[in-house]
Amino acid sequence: MSEEKKLSRETFINGAATVLGSVVILGKAGKAFAQSSKKAGKYVLSKGYAAKNKSGKLSKWSFERRELGDDDVLIDIKFSGICHSDIHQMRGHWGPQQYPQVPGHEIAGVVISVGKNVTKFKTGDHAGVGCMVDSCGTCESCKAGEEQHCDNNATLFTYGYPDKTSPSGITQGGYSSNIVVKEHFVIRIPKSMRLQDAAPLLCAGITTYSPLVKSNLKKGDKVGIAGIGGLGHIAIKLAVAKGVEVYAFTTTKSKVEDILSFGAKEAIYVDSLEKLKAYNKTLDYMISTIPYNYNLGAYASLVKPYGSFTQVGVPVGGELTLNNFAFIFNRVNYNGSLIGGIPQTQEIVDFCAKNKIYPQIELITANEINQAWEKVVNKEARYRFVIDTSTI
Amino acid sequence: MSEEKKLSRETFINGAATVLGSVVILGKAGKAFAQSSKKAGKYVLSKGYAAKNKSGKLSKWSFERRELGDDDVLIDIKFSGICHSDIHQMRGHWGPQQYPQVPGHEIAGVVISVGKNVTKFKTGDHAGVGCMVDSCGTCESCKAGEEQHCDNNATLFTYGYPDKTSPSGITQGGYSSNIVVKEHFVIRIPKSMRLQDAAPLLCAGITTYSPLVKSNLKKGDKVGIAGIGGLGHIAIKLAVAKGVEVYAFTTTKSKVEDILSFGAKEAIYVDSLEKLKAYNKTLDYMISTIPYNYNLGAYASLVKPYGSFTQVGVPVGGELTLNNFAFIFNRVNYNGSLIGGIPQTQEIVDFCAKNKIYPQIELITANEINQAWEKVVNKEARYRFVIDTSTI
Ligand SMILES: [Zn+2]
Ligand SMILES: [Zn+2]
Ligand SMILES: [Zn+2]
Ligand SMILES: [Zn+2]
Repeated sequence: MSEEKKLSRETFINGAATVLGSVVILGKAGKAFAQSSKKAGKYVLSKGYAAKNKSGKLSKWSFERRELGDDDVLIDIKFSGICHSDIHQMRGHWGPQQYPQVPGHEIAGVVISVGKNVTKFKTGDHAGVGCMVDSCGTCESCKAGEEQHCDNNATLFTYGYPDKTSPSGITQGGYSSNIVVKEHFVIRIPKSMRLQDAAPLLCAGITTYSPLVKSNLKKGDKVGIAGIGGLGHIAIKLAVAKGVEVYAFTTTKSKVEDILSFGAKEAIYVDSLEKLKAYNKTLDYMISTIPYNYNLGAYASLVKPYGSFTQVGVPVGGELTLNNFAFIFNRVNYNGSLIGGIPQTQEIVDFCAKNKIYPQIELITANEINQAWEKVVNKEARYRFVIDTSTI
Repeated sequence: MSEEKKLSRETFINGAATVLGSVVILGKAGKAFAQSSKKAGKYVLSKGYAAKNKSGKLSKWSFERRELGDDDVLIDIKFSGICHSDIHQMRGHWGPQQYPQVPGHEIAGVVISVGKNVTKFKTGDHAGVGCMVDSCGTCESCKAGEEQHCDNNATLFTYGYPDKTSPSGITQGGYSSNIVVKEHFVIRIPKSMRLQDAAPLLCAGITTYSPLVKSNLKKGDKVGIAGIGGLGHIAIKLAVAKGVEVYAFTTTKSKVEDILSFGAKEAIYVDSLEKLKAYNKTLDYMISTIPYNYNLGAYASLVKPYGSFTQVGVPVGGELTLNNFAFIFNRVNYNGSLIGGIPQTQEIVDFCAKNKIYPQIELITANEINQAWEKVVNKEARYRFVIDTSTI
């Protein structure tokens, strides 16, 4: 590149950054994009609730989404679930963010327009969007339906990720009135199911469904679920529907009755780690949704030798303390799991519709979001808040 | 139990504790024993190097071992390897200890007497003892040859564990002139192999051999080994002999040449975690012997998705920090591994004898032990110190 061209390219980038705010560096891939320049009048107008800074306090924000492309679906959002991840990310717990940013990745609504290449949807269909809205589509992982693990690092998460097609420069999530998403990343929602019941399946549901299914359980196997909140309570219902015996572990005594009503064989109130010992080496498999640093070894040791333990909860900063004395003796395989791919997300929605498995939700209006977030942080959610987005 | 009997039982225990020192609480089972009373003249006299307190400084100590039982083998110890665990345990890093205590669980020598029921050994045979000397023998794990995981918590480790048959009240290890061990826990050493080369196989060798064999590797698979010390260097040789490609990771630049001479395909000097990135998702399996808290996620991410990573190193206190962001993305199974059972320990000794695989050892005299320990702590061992116990 000649010095002159190099210079003008830098000038362009710096100029764009100056005009439009800043070059953003976000997400695991650490990609940097300048915001795209704005072509007035061609965008889709949307209104949402956005965080304006790392206080994470949400307030109204009008913004634009990209115009409908040939492969895109425009969804009129009806309901949007509240996930603990929304709070972590808006508050900068997982890295610095660009603001304003609209969270929300449990999105359910009605298709109001489709691009000319779209075949899977027509207007009036019920549709959902989960944690991702694009990927390369050509790598091995993408072709295997594991778009969340795109080998080209092109997984585009639903909010806060650099997105050249977005007028704001980043993806904007579902606490909003509408969304434009590539057809492949849109999930069909059967009309037999209420949209507000479908929304939490798209993150909370798939996050535990995916490892449960991968663990090759047989009917009658004993499965432990630790942490009974938004994710854990759906995990109980899913596991019960798959024909296994569920042992649910909670540190909140008042949840015990609910847990049994969800179909668990036993609800264990863990006021002391001593309570766990009676279950040592008794479980075929275990999932933990506990989102803070806890005694991993004590819980993992409940699994039979050579069984697996999946941690889907991610604490602030991601760090967990693992005692390897526990693991050399318990012979348990520890792993993590990140949501699930698009085919499997469709599978869980169909599975829940067919088996009438619905999350236990509490509907709120948009002006109750900040209050609901505090309840989530204080473990007072019972069990998933879902925003009626018509109130935005 | 009547009040009177209860009282006299307590009096006996307290009395014994007063006379003999203290009731010891040791080991994972947290069992407490009073020392057995001494039947003079019936014990086997032994001399060794013992820690006298948690400074871990070793000095000469004469002690007694139980008399030879019908199922026992008396071994004249010729060589005893130095394991980092010896140091951790004597210095109280893994819990409080009873002193004097003789460490050492890489023991090789000559059989000088056998009990009347012993069939596997005769006097003059070469024999070894590793990390354990007894277990229940009847539980599922024991019957499956995994005596180190005895379901009845009856695994008796070679030193520092409460042992009613031992005059000192605890097991005493191999930095000593002889040892009395139940036949089942004694390993045959082929005479084609030098005793000093066999000793380190009984802990360092089996600790990596067991998970390597369990990981079902195929010829040509890529195996990572992190931490190239006493355990890691044997792991390289074992893996190479099993026909896999070895990628060895070290933070000590001067080991690179040695590593290649052990047969590794590549020796990666990790002066920065950046060096690891080129190997991301390339390995079929990985073992880490790193014995301190390190960036587990960065290393585990070198394994292909759904592969396994085995941590055999145990840091002070056992604690490792695990970042679950790494694990939700890398899809790797983390596990620990504790030595190996008796049949597998016999297998590695036979395998190494047959394939002429010998650890790289440095022979020392007994009065050099304390100095050698410092070198182990300072990562200056190249690669396993072995004590010539005739010098005790
Ligand atoms: Zn979520
Ligand atoms: Zn891809
Ligand atoms: Zn050892
Ligand atoms: Zn046993």
